Amino acid sequence: MPTYTAPTQDTQFILHDVLNVSEATTPGYSELERDFTQAVLDEAGKIASEVLAPLNAVGDAEGCTLENGVVRTPAGFKAAFDQVREGGWTALDLPEEFGGQGMPYLMGTAVGEMFSAANQAFTMYHGLTHGAASAILAHGSEEQKQTYLPNMFSCEWTGTMNLTEPHCGTDLGMMRTKAVPQDDGSYKVSGQKIFISAGEHDMADNIIHLVLAKIPGGPEGIKGVSLFIVPKFMVNEDGSLGARNGVSCGKIEEKMGIHGNSTCVMNYDEATGFLLGEEHKGMRAMFTMMNEARLGVGMQGLAQADVAYQNALIYAKDRLQGRDVTGDKNPDGPADPLIVHPDIRRALLDQKSFAEGARAFILWGAQLIDRAHRDGDKDADGLISLLTPVIKGFLSDEGFDMTIRAQQVYGGHGYVEEWGMSQFARDARIAMIYEGANGVQALDLVGRKLAQDGGKHVMAFFDMVKTFIKENEGNEALATDFLEPLKKSSKDLQAAGMYFMQNGMKNPNAALAGSYDFMHLFGHVCLGLMWAQMARAAHEALENGASDEKFYRTKLATGRYYMKRRLPATAMHLARIETGAEPVMELEAEAF
Amino acid sequence: MPTYTAPTQDTQFILHDVLNVSEATTPGYSELERDFTQAVLDEAGKIASEVLAPLNAVGDAEGCTLENGVVRTPAGFKAAFDQVREGGWTALDLPEEFGGQGMPYLMGTAVGEMFSAANQAFTMYHGLTHGAASAILAHGSEEQKQTYLPNMFSCEWTGTMNLTEPHCGTDLGMMRTKAVPQDDGSYKVSGQKIFISAGEHDMADNIIHLVLAKIPGGPEGIKGVSLFIVPKFMVNEDGSLGARNGVSCGKIEEKMGIHGNSTCVMNYDEATGFLLGEEHKGMRAMFTMMNEARLGVGMQGLAQADVAYQNALIYAKDRLQGRDVTGDKNPDGPADPLIVHPDIRRALLDQKSFAEGARAFILWGAQLIDRAHRDGDKDADGLISLLTPVIKGFLSDEGFDMTIRAQQVYGGHGYVEEWGMSQFARDARIAMIYEGANGVQALDLVGRKLAQDGGKHVMAFFDMVKTFIKENEGNEALATDFLEPLKKSSKDLQAAGMYFMQNGMKNPNAALAGSYDFMHLFGHVCLGLMWAQMARAAHEALENGASDEKFYRTKLATGRYYMKRRLPATAMHLARIETGAEPVMELEAEAF
Repeated sequence: MPTYTAPTQDTQFILHDVLNVSEATTPGYSELERDFTQAVLDEAGKIASEVLAPLNAVGDAEGCTLENGVVRTPAGFKAAFDQVREGGWTALDLPEEFGGQGMPYLMGTAVGEMFSAANQAFTMYHGLTHGAASAILAHGSEEQKQTYLPNMFSCEWTGTMNLTEPHCGTDLGMMRTKAVPQDDGSYKVSGQKIFISAGEHDMADNIIHLVLAKIPGGPEGIKGVSLFIVPKFMVNEDGSLGARNGVSCGKIEEKMGIHGNSTCVMNYDEATGFLLGEEHKGMRAMFTMMNEARLGVGMQGLAQADVAYQNALIYAKDRLQGRDVTGDKNPDGPADPLIVHPDIRRALLDQKSFAEGARAFILWGAQLIDRAHRDGDKDADGLISLLTPVIKGFLSDEGFDMTIRAQQVYGGHGYVEEWGMSQFARDARIAMIYEGANGVQALDLVGRKLAQDGGKHVMAFFDMVKTFIKENEGNEALATDFLEPLKKSSKDLQAAGMYFMQNGMKNPNAALAGSYDFMHLFGHVCLGLMWAQMARAAHEALENGASDEKFYRTKLATGRYYMKRRLPATAMHLARIETGAEPVMELEAEAF
Repeated sequence: MPTYTAPTQDTQFILHDVLNVSEATTPGYSELERDFTQAVLDEAGKIASEVLAPLNAVGDAEGCTLENGVVRTPAGFKAAFDQVREGGWTALDLPEEFGGQGMPYLMGTAVGEMFSAANQAFTMYHGLTHGAASAILAHGSEEQKQTYLPNMFSCEWTGTMNLTEPHCGTDLGMMRTKAVPQDDGSYKVSGQKIFISAGEHDMADNIIHLVLAKIPGGPEGIKGVSLFIVPKFMVNEDGSLGARNGVSCGKIEEKMGIHGNSTCVMNYDEATGFLLGEEHKGMRAMFTMMNEARLGVGMQGLAQADVAYQNALIYAKDRLQGRDVTGDKNPDGPADPLIVHPDIRRALLDQKSFAEGARAFILWGAQLIDRAHRDGDKDADGLISLLTPVIKGFLSDEGFDMTIRAQQVYGGHGYVEEWGMSQFARDARIAMIYEGANGVQALDLVGRKLAQDGGKHVMAFFDMVKTFIKENEGNEALATDFLEPLKKSSKDLQAAGMYFMQNGMKNPNAALAGSYDFMHLFGHVCLGLMWAQMARAAHEALENGASDEKFYRTKLATGRYYMKRRLPATAMHLARIETGAEPVMELEAEAF
């Protein structure tokens, strides 16, 4: 049975040594003193390890069941959900006005990683509620906020997002779900939505569905889509629950993973809905949440990679198999532990250097979101908008790959379900798909974000890298090991961007054919930057005589590994990008 | 529900246009005329598509069940097994003396790919029997051959390989299963073996287990391991079945995939066994089969990649989503098919160029095995011995990655089990693990095979590449698109080999730290060589006015894609290799 230990020391290092959060002027940040965040993370880590992690395999094995319209979640989920909810964890970073704790989004992200690593399927129930509540918070009327938010913040009611239909996912302009206006200002919503996570379950008194639908007579395509609140049970004026609404779960999908989360086909049959935000502006309302939702999915990639790594490491230290070629390390035992073998270390260091770099990337991204929202910082908003597809696409791709490496350390034991390594891989797989499949992220990055605001944000990113290198070039401890590889990889990224500029105007396919490679190239440069920043912080800590010398020395060695062994991927991605459209486009569809 | 179409035209192209098999002097090859192989492949393809493929999802959903010691295979498996067996497919390439069809191993491999693509879990039942029968053929006494082979060739009895124990897989020297000599020359075998594919099931009258065990008092470690034949039912002198032997299935493992194959814990309790080959030479007997078994696993990687690709392609042509950025391709429809999008094409071409390159690699490898066995060609034997870990490790890694890409084309539909794409990925995953996990393949390649016979075989490989480039350098159609990238990538491979030579003597870890990258680097060069050879053959066919011009033109475009977009990986692998031991070895185990 796998275990999970919250990475509190590492999170604290990033928050305080790298991001210096408590010195930031963003509202709410001054409270994030080291002791305070330590206390929050300790408590969250305890729940993750002791309450959520033990239910992870249970959720996978039992899954959710639908009987007579009622969905039953796996044994133990409801009690754990009550515990999480009662601890106030479901609205940690939501406003106090409606019962939240009012902490920065940054803290919600740090805690979210822990819960997600411990039990992704479980954490999605309140994660989606968080998203739906945020949408109502941003676009709802005062009455809607009063009606729904307090119970959604506390997760006594949960929320869902309904976008996909059987014939359309990415291309939502084709949707068929209709919302017909009624005399009382409400709408009758009819249609079928699929892949609705937490669409129906037994852990909450009510479920508040946010549903995209078209109002008949509105504009064609995506411009005619509106967003509606469709509660499972109608809410009376006094806040009590009324009649069952015309929405029901038609089926639970059998999936590759996240079995503990009920993925539902939802049927809307003249269900009463209430317009959220403006008519035909439904996509805009949805997109308000997109940066957070996609950062959350990138975080899931990190989370599964980290828990899988933790268990692979335990196994590699424990399992005796073969001998160190340079001399026995466990001469009194029948064999040496796996971790003596260079290729096992290669697999472990790929995972470790990814997870720690990704954690810094995610937390920095969360800080940018706080700056955008709490400071109204437009530059931060533009930068996170640019980085969002990289965070989502690169971290979920790499996160999945890392779970595969972790599984591989177990040999045959990794393939049988008993050891739990298969579940990490199967659960991690979904992050590459939902909230916009990673190919769509790459398209968003290259087709939209790069040129956004005249390319201002990508220039700001390059400036950041350049400034960092310049500020530290006198630091010999960083120069060869960190600054040089960062410079080289960032030049590859610039060259790729240049290639797109020069060729993409004439032929957009010349850029789009390289979009996936560009997303990965960008991701590596970001992680390279994170590692350079972490290395600087670690050096400073060592120079200042930090007590936990071992932690900082390990941090530096792990960073050197990333710079030396992972960053060389950027040149390959550039080489692919520079082959342009032809290799990808020349074949007729019929010739495939 | 996924479908499968046998790649007969492509296999024929490789056999006849590239490998020119019927002109080879290897015994049995002259019979492999184009019409003959077409007939065999057509028939095999029909069984694969019509009998095996429809049972693939059934096997996955039902799995195998153990009740009162009896294992039930999924519905339909037994009838299909009878059909395959009655068609003579289970001993296509085994000697006629015991009822086989006597064809070259090459043909067994070509057919094996089809069966495996259609239903990997099913095909393992007779695949393992093939392996066990080959071991008896190579090492058995005349009496053992007469007793077991006819029924094993026809799969009325199936076979298994028993190596792994709970505490040891790779490091078999630690095994605890014992074989105590009896007065009648037999042995009493006791112990527990795990991960025994097809260990117990209901499709055959008898199961012939080949079991590795130690004879008490023999040498320590791996040098004291012997191989035994342990039948489920004893075989009487007249060939009829006698008493049940002391072997039973204790448990069926729950696995990530290949659910249709029963993966058993096998308990041996003073079971009667018969020595196969010599005492304490059990590993040697096992290793006789290793090249074939590992080539077979590499082939499974190709097979799952190909069937997944076929279905992704169908979906990409069928599913309407979004518009071609350069202008609508389906103006009368609500959207364009997925295949108009550059990134979808990138994913499809990665798969297509891998599958076709891998098919050529596998078939060339099978031809080398035939040369080694049928011609007694020591150079061929040395070369396939060198290439075996590359075929196994690289093709199973890449094959799995390609199933992930295929699954991704489906978006959310790829994650639900209904569409079958998840199964391809879950089934393909095992090939990276069994028959020696891929890290062990990399170790075998770098630690053993590279230097074998004084490095003669790797030099022969480089000579082959050089000769091919030299012979074709006047061919303008090949020069830029194929020969240049092949030359470049093969230089990367040579540089990596040189690095190992110069640094590995002083510190073996300097080579082993790069072993996994070397395996992939080598794999890409092999596929590059295959593509260059296929391109030459396609050009020749076009110059000779071949009727199916479209096939050859597509072949060339697919090859150009591989050379341009995939081969640049070699430089990255070289860069990683040249970082040596330090990044991998510097951290103490405790510091991870």
